[in-house]
Amino acid sequence: MNINWCLYENSYNGELIKYYEGLMTQGNGYLHVRGSYEEGISGAVQDEEYDRKPANVTLEKHKKQKSKWGTYIPGIVGPHPYLKTETINLPYIFDLKVNADGEELDMENCQIEKYERYLNLLDGILTRSFTWKTNKGKVLKLTFSRMISMADKHIAVQTLTIKAESGDINIVVTGDINTGVRTNGFNHFTRIKKEKQDDITRVITETNGGNTITMCSYLDCEGENVIQQGEQLKITKIIQVSTDRDEEIEALKETKEDIRTLDLDRLVERHRLKWTEKWRAADIVITGDNHAQLAIRMAIYHLIRADNEDDPRVAICAKGHAGEGYCGRYFWDTEINILPFFIHTNPKAARNLVKFRYMTLSGAKENAKNYGYKGARYAWESSVTGIEECANWQYADHEIHVTADIIYAMEHYVKATKDVGFIEECGLEMMKETAEYWAERVDEIDGQYQLLGVMGPDEYLPMTRNNAFTNRMVKFSLEKTVQYLSETNQGQKDQLKKWETIKERLRLPYKETDELIMQSDDFASYADVNFDEIWKDRSRYFGEFISQEKNYRSKALKQADVLEMMLLFPEEFTEKQLIANYDYYEPITTHDSSLSAAVHGILAARMGRVKEAERFLDKVIDIDMCPDKCGAEEGIHIANCGGLWQLIVYGFAGLKSAMWEDNIVLNPCLPREWQQVEIPIMWHGERKRVVVTHEGYNIN
Amino acid sequence: MNINWCLYENSYNGELIKYYEGLMTQGNGYLHVRGSYEEGISGAVQDEEYDRKPANVTLEKHKKQKSKWGTYIPGIVGPHPYLKTETINLPYIFDLKVNADGEELDMENCQIEKYERYLNLLDGILTRSFTWKTNKGKVLKLTFSRMISMADKHIAVQTLTIKAESGDINIVVTGDINTGVRTNGFNHFTRIKKEKQDDITRVITETNGGNTITMCSYLDCEGENVIQQGEQLKITKIIQVSTDRDEEIEALKETKEDIRTLDLDRLVERHRLKWTEKWRAADIVITGDNHAQLAIRMAIYHLIRADNEDDPRVAICAKGHAGEGYCGRYFWDTEINILPFFIHTNPKAARNLVKFRYMTLSGAKENAKNYGYKGARYAWESSVTGIEECANWQYADHEIHVTADIIYAMEHYVKATKDVGFIEECGLEMMKETAEYWAERVDEIDGQYQLLGVMGPDEYLPMTRNNAFTNRMVKFSLEKTVQYLSETNQGQKDQLKKWETIKERLRLPYKETDELIMQSDDFASYADVNFDEIWKDRSRYFGEFISQEKNYRSKALKQADVLEMMLLFPEEFTEKQLIANYDYYEPITTHDSSLSAAVHGILAARMGRVKEAERFLDKVIDIDMCPDKCGAEEGIHIANCGGLWQLIVYGFAGLKSAMWEDNIVLNPCLPREWQQVEIPIMWHGERKRVVVTHEGYNIN
Repeated sequence: MNINWCLYENSYNGELIKYYEGLMTQGNGYLHVRGSYEEGISGAVQDEEYDRKPANVTLEKHKKQKSKWGTYIPGIVGPHPYLKTETINLPYIFDLKVNADGEELDMENCQIEKYERYLNLLDGILTRSFTWKTNKGKVLKLTFSRMISMADKHIAVQTLTIKAESGDINIVVTGDINTGVRTNGFNHFTRIKKEKQDDITRVITETNGGNTITMCSYLDCEGENVIQQGEQLKITKIIQVSTDRDEEIEALKETKEDIRTLDLDRLVERHRLKWTEKWRAADIVITGDNHAQLAIRMAIYHLIRADNEDDPRVAICAKGHAGEGYCGRYFWDTEINILPFFIHTNPKAARNLVKFRYMTLSGAKENAKNYGYKGARYAWESSVTGIEECANWQYADHEIHVTADIIYAMEHYVKATKDVGFIEECGLEMMKETAEYWAERVDEIDGQYQLLGVMGPDEYLPMTRNNAFTNRMVKFSLEKTVQYLSETNQGQKDQLKKWETIKERLRLPYKETDELIMQSDDFASYADVNFDEIWKDRSRYFGEFISQEKNYRSKALKQADVLEMMLLFPEEFTEKQLIANYDYYEPITTHDSSLSAAVHGILAARMGRVKEAERFLDKVIDIDMCPDKCGAEEGIHIANCGGLWQLIVYGFAGLKSAMWEDNIVLNPCLPREWQQVEIPIMWHGERKRVVVTHEGYNIN
Repeated sequence: MNINWCLYENSYNGELIKYYEGLMTQGNGYLHVRGSYEEGISGAVQDEEYDRKPANVTLEKHKKQKSKWGTYIPGIVGPHPYLKTETINLPYIFDLKVNADGEELDMENCQIEKYERYLNLLDGILTRSFTWKTNKGKVLKLTFSRMISMADKHIAVQTLTIKAESGDINIVVTGDINTGVRTNGFNHFTRIKKEKQDDITRVITETNGGNTITMCSYLDCEGENVIQQGEQLKITKIIQVSTDRDEEIEALKETKEDIRTLDLDRLVERHRLKWTEKWRAADIVITGDNHAQLAIRMAIYHLIRADNEDDPRVAICAKGHAGEGYCGRYFWDTEINILPFFIHTNPKAARNLVKFRYMTLSGAKENAKNYGYKGARYAWESSVTGIEECANWQYADHEIHVTADIIYAMEHYVKATKDVGFIEECGLEMMKETAEYWAERVDEIDGQYQLLGVMGPDEYLPMTRNNAFTNRMVKFSLEKTVQYLSETNQGQKDQLKKWETIKERLRLPYKETDELIMQSDDFASYADVNFDEIWKDRSRYFGEFISQEKNYRSKALKQADVLEMMLLFPEEFTEKQLIANYDYYEPITTHDSSLSAAVHGILAARMGRVKEAERFLDKVIDIDMCPDKCGAEEGIHIANCGGLWQLIVYGFAGLKSAMWEDNIVLNPCLPREWQQVEIPIMWHGERKRVVVTHEGYNIN
C-alpha cells in the first residue's frame, strides 16, 4: 500500500462507518457505490422510512445513521414528496454475507483483528482484510476487494478470499442484490422483480421516475464450502448494471455478454489501464508534503469518478454522487468550482458538463415562465430536466447568479480549449435565452438597470440590492451575448441594442476606484456581529450559533462573495483593492460553505501571504479528509475537490486563468514545505506539464 | 324573515354550498359548527385524506371541495404533520338523514322546490325549508332548524318537521354524530368510541393533541314513521358537547343533566334571551342603507359568536372558528382589528382577549429563547401555548410587530375601560418580558437603535429596515413599559434606564416634519410596479399575477402600513401628512389582505372623502358577503368584521379612539345614503348610546 495513493483505515470504528462509506465511494461516472461493508453491519437498517423535510441547506441535520448504503446512477431520479426530484438510491450490488461455522460475519459483534482497509486511488480498488476469530475459536483471514470498472461502464467486480488459519472451517457465502434500501427515507421503487437461478441473480427495478434498472450478478462458489486449515477459498462476484436511459448515448450502450463468461483478469487489467490513462492526464505530484499529496489525489480521484464524460444529460452533483446530501442536484459548483479541473485535464468531459446546461435549456425556459419572465432562467438546484428543484424559496427565487455563471463557464471552456464550435452548436441559444431573461429581471431605476432582491454567493443575506458578484457576472454574460450574436450576425438588432444598453447601464455597487467594495448596495446597513460572543466553538458552523432571523440581518458572510468576484475577474482589481477587500471580508466570513476556503486560499497565495494560504489549504483538506469532522458522511464535497485543485493550480502555482490569458503564465507562491509541484495542464488543446519550485517554473 | 336581520339564500346552488357553510356558521364562543346541510350532499366526501403543505398565506389555494363540514371547539388543537398545531375539526353533530319511501334526501339529486334558508342573526337560529317531490310523486315539506345555545354552552338543538303534502309517506329518519371528518385532510383522532343505545348516541373522541371530547345526542322520533297526507312529523335532536378542558374554567363546567329530560322550549327561550342581551350591548342601527345594516349585523353576529368571553385560554382565530383557513391560529388581528369592538361592547370579553396573551406568556418566552433572545416574543401565529406555529419562516421570523401590538392593545383596553387592575395582574409582567426581548432585538448602529430584517403589516416586503409602523409600535410599547414599571416601583433601575434609552434612540424612518413618510428606510429602493400591465383582473388578488420573487422587490403593498400607523397614532400626524401619505400609498396598495380596506375607509372618512370611504365600505362588505367572491368558504374574515365595526364607529361616526381621548368625541362623515346611525358604546365602564346624523350627534 502506497501512502501517497491510498485512503487508509487501520482499525474498525463503528462511529466512522458512514464517514468512510462516503470517502471510499467507488465509481466510473456511470455508476457509483458508497464504500459500505459487503456484509452490512448490525444495527444499521437500510430501508427505514422517515419524513425528510427541506431545511436550511447549510445546517441541515441529517438523520443519525450508523451506515448508509448508496448506489447511484446519475440520471436515475424520481420525485420525493417534499424534496422534489432526487437521485434514487438503487439496490445494493455488493451484498455478500459470510457465515463461518454458523456464525454470521459482523464487524460490530465478531472478534476482529488486524483490520485494514484502503481505497487505492490509482485504480479505484477498495480492499479490506482482517482476521476473524470465531466463537468456536477458529481463525480465518478474509480479504474483500472490489471495483467498478472504469473501462466497462456496466461492470463491477468483487472478490473475497477466505483463508482458514486455524482449524477446518465450514463456510457459507451468500450474495445478493439487496433491494431493501430507501432514499432519504423514501421508497422510490414502484416495482421490483427478482429472480435467482443457479449462480445468477437478476433484479429489475422500476422507479417512480419512470425508469427501469436491470442488475444482474454472477456469484462463483456460493453456498456451503469447507476450507481446510491452511487452505483458502476465493469467491468472485461479477455484476452487470444497465438502465433504459443507456440507449440514447452510444458510449453507454451495453454489450450483452454473458457475465459468466467474462474474464476476470482481463476486466481488471482493462480497468487499471483506463485509470492509468486518467491519472496521466490529471495527476498532480507534490514533493515535500505527503498529506497534501494524498489530499489532491483524493480530490482528483473523486472528480474523475464522479464525472460521466460520455453523457451530457447529467452533471456532477454537489455530493459527487457519493451520498444523498443535496438530493443529487446540480449547482453552480459545476461551473465555477469543478469545471476548471476538467477544462485543463479532460476537455471532452468539460464540454459535456457545459453542454449539460444546453440539454436542460428547455427546463430553464420553463423556470423563467413560471416566474413570469421570457427567456431562460437556470435552476438554482437542477436535476435532469433543468426545472427548479430547490425546495427553499429564498435560494430558488433569489440566488439568480447561476444563470450568468453558466455563460461565464461556457466562455471559460471555449477560451481554454479553443472549441469555438461549441458557441454555434449550443452557446448562441443559451446566451440569447438567458439575455432575454435578464432583460426582464432588471429594474430600471434612476437611469440605471438594477438587480433587486438578490442572494449572492453569500447565502447569509437572502435579499440584497445589486450584489456586486451577481451584477458583474450578468454584465459579463450580456457582453458575451451581444459580442457572439453580433459576430455571427444573429439576434434581432433591437434586441441586441437593448441588451447592450442594459449591459452598459447595469449598476455595479462600486466604482473602479473604490478601494473597499461593498458586497451589495445595502451591505453597509446590516448589523455588525460580535463573533466572539456568538461563535462559542469555531470547530462548528457559525450558523449553528445564531438564528436564521438574526443571521439574515447581520454582516456575517457564509462564503466569499466580493472575493469570489475578484477571483473570477482578476484583471479588474488592483493588488491594493484585493488586499483591502480580503482584509475587510475575511474576518467577517464564517466559511460555513465548503466553497469558501479554497477561494480565500487562492487569493491569499496571490497576495503572497503564504502562511494564510497554507491555513486555508489545511481547511480545504479537512473538509472531507478529517475523520474528526466526518465531512464525507453524506457524500463528497466535490466542489471543494475542484477548489483544492484550483488552490494548487491557480493559488500556489499561480496559473493565470485561461479566461484572461492566452499563454500559460504562472506567478507561484508555494507552501514553505513543498519542494516542487508538477501539474499536467491541457491548454488550447495541447497537453503541457508545468513544474513549479520555489525558484521558478518551467513548462513542457 | 326580517331582511335586516337575516342572511338569506333563496335557491339551492351547488357552487355556493361551501360559501354558505362558512357564512352561516353558528356558535356560542365555546362550540362552532359550519352551516352544512344536515343530511350531507352527494359528491362531498368529508374524510378524504390529503397532504396540505404550507404555502404563501395570502394566496394559498385551498382544496376544491363542494362542501366542508366544520365543528370546532377553540382550544381543541393537535399537531399536523406540516402545518404545526391546528384546531381540530370534530365529529359533525348535526348529522340527520331523511329517507322518504326509500329515497334518500339529497339537495343535489332530489327534486327540490321553494327552497329557502336563512340564518337569523338576532337569535343565531338557522332554518331551511323546501318541498321535496319524491320519485314516486309524493310531495313533502321539510323544515330544518337548529341552534347552538348561547345560554347553555354545551347544548345544541335541532328540529326537523316533515309535512306530507300529497299522499301518505313512509319516512325514515336517522341521526348521527358523524366521525368521518378530517382537518385539512389529516386525521387528528387517535381513538373514537361510539355507542348507540335506544335514542342516545354517545361519541368519545380522543385527539392527537391529548384531549377527550364527549358528544352525546338524543334523537326523538328516530326510525320509521308513516306520515299521513296533511299531517306532519316533528323530530327533535338535542346534543350535548363537553371536553376535558372544560373543568379548568368555572363558567364552562357542565351541569350533567340527562338530555332526555331537557325542556326544548325553555332551552330556546334561554338562548334567545341571551342573544337579545348580546345585541342590546352591540347592535348598530343604520337608517337608510339596508345592505350596510345587514352587513354590520352579520359582522357583529360573528364577532359575538366567535368569542368565548369566559375563557382567557383561547382567542378568536383568523377565520372566526368558521373554517380551517389559517389552521385556527391567532394573529395580531385580535389586538388591532377585533379588540376595539369588544372594548366598547363587552369589556369582560375584551379583558379575556388581552389576558389570552398573558396566559401564553410562557410560550412567548420559549419563542424568544428559540431565537436566541431573552424576554418574550409573541408568536406571529399562536395556538393555545403561545409557541410560534407559523410554518413559513418569513412571517414567523420577521413579522415581529405583534409583540408590540399586544402592549398597545393592552393599553387601549385599560384606557377605554379604566380597568387599571389589569396592569398589575398581568400587564407588568408582559411589558417587562417583551421589553427584554426588544432590548436584544435592536441593533445599535450609528448611535441609534434599529430594527433590521423586519416585515411590517405590508407582507409583500419581507425583510425591510426600520419599518415605520413596527418601530413606532415598539417605541410606544417601551414607553408604556418604563412608565408603568416606574409608577409601580418595579423593574431594576439599570434595566429601566436601558429601555428608556432604547425608546429614546429607537430610529423612526421619518421626521415629524416629513410630509411623505417612507414605510421603511429602504422603501424607496424597491422597484416601481406597472400595475396596469401586471394586474389584468382587479377582481382577483394582485398576488396571483406576480411571482413572489418579483413581488418581494416591488413597491406594491399588500395592505395599509404607514396608514395603519396613522390610524393608531392619530394625534401625531397632521391632516396634510395624512393626505400626502394616503395619496401616495393607496394607489400602490393591492388590498390583497382583508385587513386593508377598513383602514383605508376609516382614513378616507377622516379626511372627509366620503365617496372614497363608501367605496371601501363596499369592499369591506364584499369580502365575506358577496356570493360571487365566496370569501367565506374557508371561514369568516373576522378581522374584517372588526374592521367594518371600526369603519362605522371610527370612520363614519368619527369616534376618537379611547386611547387618545378621555371623552366621547366624534367627528362624523356619514355615507350620503345614511340618514342616521345609532351605536352603543361602553366608555370607562358606562354604557352610552351615540346617535349620529348628517346634522351632528348626541350621546346618552
